[in-house]
Amino acid sequence: MAFSEIEYVVADRVATITLNRPARLNAFTFAMRGELIEAFDLADADDEVRAVVVTGAGRAFCAGADLGGGGGTFGQREPGETVDGVPRDGGGTVALRIARSLKPVIGAINGPAVGVGVTMTLPMDVRLAAESARFGFVFARRGIVTEAASSWFLPRIVGIAQAMEWAATGRVFPASEALAGRLVSRVHPDGELLPAAYALAREVADNTSAVAVAAVRRLMWSGLSAASPWETHAADSRLMSELGGAPDSVEGVTAFLDKRQAEFPMKVSTDLPPGVPSWPDSPYGV
Amino acid sequence: MAFSEIEYVVADRVATITLNRPARLNAFTFAMRGELIEAFDLADADDEVRAVVVTGAGRAFCAGADLGGGGGTFGQREPGETVDGVPRDGGGTVALRIARSLKPVIGAINGPAVGVGVTMTLPMDVRLAAESARFGFVFARRGIVTEAASSWFLPRIVGIAQAMEWAATGRVFPASEALAGRLVSRVHPDGELLPAAYALAREVADNTSAVAVAAVRRLMWSGLSAASPWETHAADSRLMSELGGAPDSVEGVTAFLDKRQAEFPMKVSTDLPPGVPSWPDSPYGV
Amino acid sequence: MAFSEIEYVVADRVATITLNRPARLNAFTFAMRGELIEAFDLADADDEVRAVVVTGAGRAFCAGADLGGGGGTFGQREPGETVDGVPRDGGGTVALRIARSLKPVIGAINGPAVGVGVTMTLPMDVRLAAESARFGFVFARRGIVTEAASSWFLPRIVGIAQAMEWAATGRVFPASEALAGRLVSRVHPDGELLPAAYALAREVADNTSAVAVAAVRRLMWSGLSAASPWETHAADSRLMSELGGAPDSVEGVTAFLDKRQAEFPMKVSTDLPPGVPSWPDSPYGV
Repeated sequence: MAFSEIEYVVADRVATITLNRPARLNAFTFAMRGELIEAFDLADADDEVRAVVVTGAGRAFCAGADLGGGGGTFGQREPGETVDGVPRDGGGTVALRIARSLKPVIGAINGPAVGVGVTMTLPMDVRLAAESARFGFVFARRGIVTEAASSWFLPRIVGIAQAMEWAATGRVFPASEALAGRLVSRVHPDGELLPAAYALAREVADNTSAVAVAAVRRLMWSGLSAASPWETHAADSRLMSELGGAPDSVEGVTAFLDKRQAEFPMKVSTDLPPGVPSWPDSPYGV
Repeated sequence: MAFSEIEYVVADRVATITLNRPARLNAFTFAMRGELIEAFDLADADDEVRAVVVTGAGRAFCAGADLGGGGGTFGQREPGETVDGVPRDGGGTVALRIARSLKPVIGAINGPAVGVGVTMTLPMDVRLAAESARFGFVFARRGIVTEAASSWFLPRIVGIAQAMEWAATGRVFPASEALAGRLVSRVHPDGELLPAAYALAREVADNTSAVAVAAVRRLMWSGLSAASPWETHAADSRLMSELGGAPDSVEGVTAFLDKRQAEFPMKVSTDLPPGVPSWPDSPYGV
Repeated sequence: MAFSEIEYVVADRVATITLNRPARLNAFTFAMRGELIEAFDLADADDEVRAVVVTGAGRAFCAGADLGGGGGTFGQREPGETVDGVPRDGGGTVALRIARSLKPVIGAINGPAVGVGVTMTLPMDVRLAAESARFGFVFARRGIVTEAASSWFLPRIVGIAQAMEWAATGRVFPASEALAGRLVSRVHPDGELLPAAYALAREVADNTSAVAVAAVRRLMWSGLSAASPWETHAADSRLMSELGGAPDSVEGVTAFLDKRQAEFPMKVSTDLPPGVPSWPDSPYGV
C-alpha cells in the first residue's frame, strides 16, 4: 500500500499510522483525509492487527488544517460525499471512521495537536501524550466551529465546562493541562511515549479475544449515545446469546480455569456476530 | 424471607444485601440473580428502608459468573424473560432492577469485584471500596462482551477513554486505579468500609424526605438519558407542582425555618407522585 | 434598563449580572427570575458583550428560593407559561435561558450557592468559586426535587455518582468538595475571584470571533444531547459550509498567518448563520 502523507506499518500485531508531513508539522490535507480512512479500512480488514497506534512524524502530531491556501482555506470544501445537501466536513469523515473502528485505537500524541489535529483524536479510545505535546481547539480564533463531530465527543470526554473553556477561548495549552482536564489519560517523557502506547496495545493483543474486543468497542461507543440502558440491555442480550457459546468463549473460560494463556480461534474478518451494533443513523453497517 | 445465596437484613432504616456464597467468592448464579431482584423489590416496598447497602460475605465482593459449568458457562442462558426474541442477559436483569430502585443504593466493595461482580455495581448511586478491593472488566478475556448494560453505565461514570481501556484490556486493577479513574468515590481501610457506607446511608435517612429522594433518584437517572434539558424541565415542572405544596415540602421548609430536624409524614409506598419518571422504553412503571 | 433585584452592567466587553438582594442573601424570587431572563436577552442582543459574568452582591451568591412565604413556599407557582399543562418550574426557565445564551457565561460564585442558587449555575459554561463559597443541592431536605433541569445538567457535569450523593443527602459542602467533585473548575481566594472571571472573559473577547463562539456554544451544548456523532457531523458540515468562507474565517486565518491580532468583522446580531443549532424540543429558535 503506497501512501504519500501517512505511513502505515503493521508489526507485532499492532498497526502504526504515522501522520507524515513533518516539514509541514503534519498539517491535515484532503489527501491525508483519504489516506487515513483507507488505513483504518486496512486495519479493520487485517486479522493480524489487534490494535492501532496513531502518531506523528517529527516534532509535531498534527498542526491542524494546512493553511497553505491562505485566508480562503476553510472556504474550500472537497467535492465528494454530502450530508443534508452540503459537503461532509473533512475532519468528521476521519473522526467517524475512527469511531466505528473494530480495533482499539491509541493516540500517541508526540507534539502539537491543534485544530483537526486534536479533534481527530477524540474518537480514539485512549490518548497518551508526550511531555512536549500541546493542544488547542483554536477554531473560534479562525472564525469557524469545532468540527470533526468534536461537539459530540469532547464534552463526553472532558465534561462540558472544560470543553467550553477550551473551545470559547481557543487557548493553546500544555500536556499538563490536558491531563488535569482528562483530555489525555497519561503524560510520558517524550522518549517513553511510543513504548507506553505499544505496551497498552500488547496488553490488548496478548490477553483478549479479537472478536470480543471488536464487539465491546462498538457496544461501548454506541452505548454512549443509546437512548437508555434498556436499549443497551437488548444489544447485550443478543451479543451474549451470539458469543456466549461460541469458540472464543469456550476457550476463554477453559484457559482461565486451566490457568493458561488463551488461544482464541475466532477472527474479526469472518466471525463477527450480526448483533454488533452501530449508531442508528450511521450510513455504514458493521 | 428465606434467601439462600444472599442475606437481606434491615436495621436502623438501612437494608443490607450481602452476596453470600463466600466459599465461591460470592460468584454469581441464576439463583443469586433472582434473589437480588427480590431483595430490591422488598427494599422498595418497605417504608422502613431509606437506603440500601450492598456488600459481600468473606473476602470477596463477587468474583463474577460462577464458572463451575466449565467452558460452556456463558452458553447457558436461563429460561425466562426475553428481549427482542433472545433470553435477557442475566446481569442486565439485576442492573436494571437496581437502576429503577426507589431507594439510594450504596455499593460497599469489600474485595474482588470482577465481571458481573463489578458491572452489577454500576447502577448503584455511590461505590465505596475497601483498600483490598480489586476490579476487572474481564469479559474480552473470556470471549464475551461487557454485559449488564455496562456499555451504557460505565462510559457515563468513568468516561469513554477509561471505560475502553479497562474493557479492551480486560485488566484486573486495584482500588487505587479505580479511585483515580472515578469508578469508586472513596477508598477506605478494610475495617472502615462498612461504617463509611452506613454513615452515608444515615446522612440520607436522617435529613431527607423519602418521597423526595425516590423522585430525585428517578429524575436524575432518567435525566442521564433524557433527550434534552427541555424534556427534564417538563418532568421537573410536573414534580414541583405535585410535591411543592405537599406535606413533606411544608414540613421541610417549616422545619428549616424553625431550625429543627424535619419529621416528614409522606411514605414512598403510598404517596409517590404520578410524575416520577422512568425510562421511556422500560417495561416497568413507577 | 432598570432592574430591582439584579444589577446589569456592561464594561470592557463583558456583561456582569449581579444578584442583588444582599439583605436576603440574594434569595431567588419570581421578580428575580424575570429580570435574569431579561438580562440574558440584553446580553445576547448587544454586540458589545462578548461574555457574561454572574455573581452575587454581598457575602452570598444565592441562598436559594426566598422562603419568606413559609411552609407553603414551594406550593406557590407563578402564573405564566406552562409545559404539558403545568406551570413551568421557575428555576428551569432561567436555566434554559442561560443554556441557549449566545455568549459564554462564567459563574463567579462568591459565597453560599444553595438550591436554585446552585442549579441556576449548571448551564453556565464555567463555574469559578471563592474559597468561602459553599454549595447545597438541598431539595430533598425541603421535600421537593432537584429542579431547573439540574437532573439533566448535573450528572453530565460531575457524573451520576457525585450527583446522586449530593442530591440524596442534600448535604451543604465547601468549595474544596465542589472542586474535587468537578462542580467548579477552580477555587480562588475571595479577593481574586472576580479578577479571575474577568481574565477568562477577556481571553474570549481578545482572541475569538463572536459569531464563531456563539455557533460553537450552541453546537457544543446541543451536541451534549445529540442522538449520535452523526447528527453532530451533519450540523458541523452545515456550519463549516456557512462559516468556512465567511469574512471572520478569512480574517482569522489571514491574521494567524500574518502573526497579528485578528479584527473580526462579523456580528452576532446580524451575521449568525442559519445552521446554528438548538435543542430539537426547544420552543425557541436561534
